[in-house]
Amino acid sequence: MKKTLMAVAVSSAVLAGCANNSADDTVASAQNTQVKNVILMIGDGMGPQQVGLLEEYVRRAPQSELERQTALSKLANEGRLGLSLNAPHGPHGKLVVDSACSATQLATGVAAGSEMIGLDYQGNVVETILEKAKKAGKATGLVSDTRITHATPAAFASHQPHRSFEANIAAELIESGNVDVMLSGGARVFLPSDIKKDSADQQVMADLGAPKSVYKKSKRKDDRNLVVEAKSQHGYALAFDKTQLNAASSDKLLGLFANSGMDDGIAYSACKRDDSCTQPSLREMTLKALDVLSKDEDGFFLMIEGGQIDWAGHANDAGWMLHELLKFDEAVDAVYEWVKERNDTLVIVTADHETGSFGFSYSRKNTPTAKTLPGAGMKGNDYKPNFNFGDLAHLDRLYNQSGTFYDMLNAASPDWNFDEASAKDWQEAINQFSDYKVTLDQAASVGEREENTYYQADHKYQSAKVVPQFDDFKEFYVYADEDHTAKIGRALAADQNVVWGTGTHTAAPVPVYAFGPAGLTEQFSTMQHHVEVGQKMIKALGLN
Amino acid sequence: MKKTLMAVAVSSAVLAGCANNSADDTVASAQNTQVKNVILMIGDGMGPQQVGLLEEYVRRAPQSELERQTALSKLANEGRLGLSLNAPHGPHGKLVVDSACSATQLATGVAAGSEMIGLDYQGNVVETILEKAKKAGKATGLVSDTRITHATPAAFASHQPHRSFEANIAAELIESGNVDVMLSGGARVFLPSDIKKDSADQQVMADLGAPKSVYKKSKRKDDRNLVVEAKSQHGYALAFDKTQLNAASSDKLLGLFANSGMDDGIAYSACKRDDSCTQPSLREMTLKALDVLSKDEDGFFLMIEGGQIDWAGHANDAGWMLHELLKFDEAVDAVYEWVKERNDTLVIVTADHETGSFGFSYSRKNTPTAKTLPGAGMKGNDYKPNFNFGDLAHLDRLYNQSGTFYDMLNAASPDWNFDEASAKDWQEAINQFSDYKVTLDQAASVGEREENTYYQADHKYQSAKVVPQFDDFKEFYVYADEDHTAKIGRALAADQNVVWGTGTHTAAPVPVYAFGPAGLTEQFSTMQHHVEVGQKMIKALGLN
Repeated sequence: MKKTLMAVAVSSAVLAGCANNSADDTVASAQNTQVKNVILMIGDGMGPQQVGLLEEYVRRAPQSELERQTALSKLANEGRLGLSLNAPHGPHGKLVVDSACSATQLATGVAAGSEMIGLDYQGNVVETILEKAKKAGKATGLVSDTRITHATPAAFASHQPHRSFEANIAAELIESGNVDVMLSGGARVFLPSDIKKDSADQQVMADLGAPKSVYKKSKRKDDRNLVVEAKSQHGYALAFDKTQLNAASSDKLLGLFANSGMDDGIAYSACKRDDSCTQPSLREMTLKALDVLSKDEDGFFLMIEGGQIDWAGHANDAGWMLHELLKFDEAVDAVYEWVKERNDTLVIVTADHETGSFGFSYSRKNTPTAKTLPGAGMKGNDYKPNFNFGDLAHLDRLYNQSGTFYDMLNAASPDWNFDEASAKDWQEAINQFSDYKVTLDQAASVGEREENTYYQADHKYQSAKVVPQFDDFKEFYVYADEDHTAKIGRALAADQNVVWGTGTHTAAPVPVYAFGPAGLTEQFSTMQHHVEVGQKMIKALGLN
Repeated sequence: MKKTLMAVAVSSAVLAGCANNSADDTVASAQNTQVKNVILMIGDGMGPQQVGLLEEYVRRAPQSELERQTALSKLANEGRLGLSLNAPHGPHGKLVVDSACSATQLATGVAAGSEMIGLDYQGNVVETILEKAKKAGKATGLVSDTRITHATPAAFASHQPHRSFEANIAAELIESGNVDVMLSGGARVFLPSDIKKDSADQQVMADLGAPKSVYKKSKRKDDRNLVVEAKSQHGYALAFDKTQLNAASSDKLLGLFANSGMDDGIAYSACKRDDSCTQPSLREMTLKALDVLSKDEDGFFLMIEGGQIDWAGHANDAGWMLHELLKFDEAVDAVYEWVKERNDTLVIVTADHETGSFGFSYSRKNTPTAKTLPGAGMKGNDYKPNFNFGDLAHLDRLYNQSGTFYDMLNAASPDWNFDEASAKDWQEAINQFSDYKVTLDQAASVGEREENTYYQADHKYQSAKVVPQFDDFKEFYVYADEDHTAKIGRALAADQNVVWGTGTHTAAPVPVYAFGPAGLTEQFSTMQHHVEVGQKMIKALGLN
C-alpha cells in the first residue's frame, strides 16, 4: 500500500524482468527514476476550474468538431495526475502567489518571495533547473506566447529583484548563454529606446527580416539592440515570423514574434481557420523547440508556457480563456505525440496558480419549466429543478466569442478614454464580439467609474485617480482601467452561467500532470507543493 | 508508460512474487483489483479550493497546535490522487450539479438529472452501490453530519423524483431494510406531524431516550412515527446522543442526533475543547459505523458525508468552512487508521461539487511597505511587492471565528425580521463572533435589501418579495434571506484576503483520493467523471 515501496517493486520487477530479478536492480531502478529530458509545461492561471472548462468544452460542446479527448486527458490516463499548492512557501510565505514567485519556486525548488525572479525569499540568487541542466551539458529552451521576459519564462534563466525589470531580464537571457532556444514575444525590451523614431535602427531590424509590428516600439531606456547582440555576439539565429521559424536550423535560436505579447487565442483560432497566421502557434513553437533541443545527445530541459490563460482570467473573460486553453492543449498534444513512445523523458504539465476564481454556476435566472419524464421513478411528478444549472450550449456560445474583452475596450474607446465612452459605445463594442448581447443598461454598468479609494501616487497601478467601479470585492480589482474587462464579465455572467471571484489570483491547488517512466511519475499523484515539484524535476534529471 | 499495462504488471509481479510468476496470475490479479469493503467519504462542496484551505491551515497556521499533516495528505501520499468532473453527465446533462444528482451519479454510475434522488436522467429507478452491496450479503451504512434524509445520503438508498421529498425518503430508508447503520441528524421527518403539541407523542420519544431537542418539531404531514417503526417493525436499535451511540451494540442501528442538521463545525470545535459535546462527532459516528459493519464477514459499503462544508460555502463563510474541513479530516483520519494496514478495502474520498467559488486572493488593500532583504540578488533594491498577497495569520484568525454567519443572522434578528435589523444590530452580531471587526458602514451594507427581481410565487426560494441586495452576480444568490450570510462574507472579504464567486455551486473538478490495493487505486489518478468513479467502486466490490 505504501507508494514508495510499491514504486521500487515496480521499477525493479518490470525493468529487470521477473526471470532474473536477482540481477542488477540498481541499474534498473536508476533507469526508471532518472531521465534525459524534462519538459515542463505551465498553463499560467490554469487552475482546476480552468481545466474543467477545457474538459467540458472538448467532451461536451454540442457543436464542436474536435476530437472528444484533450491531450491533457491523454497524459492523465496514461500517466499520473496530482495537485499542488503554490503559495509563497514556508513560514515567511504568503497565502497567494504571483507568476514570478511561482515560476521561481518551480524552477529552483526553494521558497521565493512575491514578484521576484530567480531569487529565494531572502533575495539570494538560486540556480534554476535550466541553469543546472545547461551546466550538465544539456540543451535548454523557453517557449511562451506572452513575452520571453515575462515572469514565467524569466524565472527559469534570470535573477532580478522584481519581475518588472524586463529590460534587465532580456540582457541576462542573451548574455548568460544558458538558453539555447527562446521563442516568444517581447521584442520591445530587446530594442534601442528610440526605435520608434530612429529610421536607422528600424532599418537594422528590417534587414534582419523583422516585420514592422515586431519593432514598432521599445521599452528599453538605453541604446542597446539585444537582437543584434544576440546574433553577432552570442551566436543566436533569429526568427520573427512563422516562416522564418520553420526555416531556422541553428541550435541556438531566438524567436521574437511580437513587440509585446503574442496573438491571443481568439485571434489564433481565427487565423488558423483560414490559414492566415503569420505568428507561429504555441504548438508550432513547441515542435520547433523539441526539434532543435532533441539533437543534443545529453538531453534537454524545456519550459513551455501557455501564458494568456492567465490574462483571460484577470479579464474575467471566459470566451477568451476557452480559446487560450485550447491553444495550450494543442501544444500539450505536440508534446504528448513526441514523447508517448519514449522512456527517457519526464513531462510535467501544471499551472503556476489559478486566476479569477472562475466557475460555471447555477442561478435563479431562467429557471427551467416543468417537463414530463418517462421513468417510473417520477411517480407522476413533473421534472422541474429549482434552478438554472446551465445549458451545454454555453460551451459553443463561449467559443463563438470573436474578440477578447480587450478588443471590446479598444472598440469602446480606441484611446482608452473611458470617461468619455457612452453606454452606446460599450453596447456596440460588446455586442460586436460576444454571442451574448447586452442591453443598454448592462452596457452602462460596464462603463461605471469611481474615485480610486486605494490611490497611491507612486504605485504601478494605483496611481490612477479614477478607476472602474466595483461594488463587491473591489479590493481584488487592482489593474485600474484594464478592469473594465471584468465589468464586461459581470454584465455577461448571468447569461453565461459564469461567475468570477477576483481580478487577481487565488490559492487553489493546481493540477499536476506527470507523464514518463512510472517510477518517476508515481510521486506526483499526491497533494504536493510547487517547491517539491521543482525538487522532483531537478532530481529526475539527476541534478542536485 | 501505459497505466493499465503497468497495473497488471504490478499486481501479478508483486502479489505472485517474482520467483514463481508463472503461477496463478489470475488469482493474484483478482485479489488486487477487488475488495471486500468500500468506504466512500464525500466532503460536500469540498472542491480543490476548499482542500487548499484545509491544507494551508494545517500546514502553516502560525498558532495551530495540530499535527502538521492532514489525514487527506496521508491518503494522497500513500495512495493516489486524481480529479473528477461532476456535472449532470452526458449530452442531456447540464454544466453544474447539485448534491442529489451528484450523489446519485456516484452511487449508481449512470447519468442523473438535477435534484433527483436515485433516478437516472429519464426518471428510472437505478440500483445503487449500497443496494447492490446489500443484495450481495454485505453490511451497509450511511453517516452524515446533516440529515440522514438529505440529498447526499438519500441518493444511496432511496429513489425519489425530488430531493425535497425528505418525508418519503425517511420512510424508504426505514422500510427498505437496505441500510444497516444510519447515523445523522434529521429526526424531524421521522416524527408524527403534531409532535410539537402532542404530549403523548413526546412521551414516546422521551421513553426511547431522546432529548427534547431531537423531537422538538416535525416536518411530516402524517402521524407516522418512523423512529418507533424502525425499532418495532424493522429491528433497529436507536441512539439519540453520543452516550447512547457508544453503548449501542446492535448490527442494525439508527442514530438521529438532531432534529434537523447536526451541530456545525465551530460549535463542535468549542464543545470538543471543553469536552462537553453531547452529539457524537463525524469521527465518532464513523468509528461506530466501522465497528458495526466490519463484523459482517461478507464485507460492507459505507458512505460518510461531511455535509456542512457545503453549507459554509453557500454562506460564503470561510471561518465556518475551515472548521467543517477540520471536522471532516478527523473522520478521514479515523478511516485512515482503520484501513492503513488492510488490503481488503478501497477508500475513496471526494466531493460532490465545489461550493462558493472560494479563494484566498491578492488585493490592493494594505499593500506591503518596503523592506530590506539580505540577499545579493536584490542589488540594492528594496523588497516591495505591488500587492497584498495575504498573511498566514489569516489562517488563525479564520479559525478564531466563534460562530457561523447563521449565528450572526440569528443575533442580528432572532426572528429573521431583517427589514427591521439596524446597522448597529448587524455590527454587534458580526463583531461578537468574528475576529475581523466591521465598521458601521460595512455592517449597514450587510443589511441592504431590495425587491426580488426574480420573484416567482410558487418557487421554494424565489417566493420572497424582498431579498438581500447583491450588486454583482446577483442571479447566483438564490436563497433569499439566508443570503445575508454572503453579504457578511462580502463585508469581511478584503480584510480576510478571501473572495467568493457565487452563493451556489461551481463545476470545478473535485479531488479524488484513493487508498487501498494499488491495482485498484491506480485508475483514480486521472481526470475522470463521477459516473466513472461510481462504476469503478461498484466494480471494485465485484458487483455489476
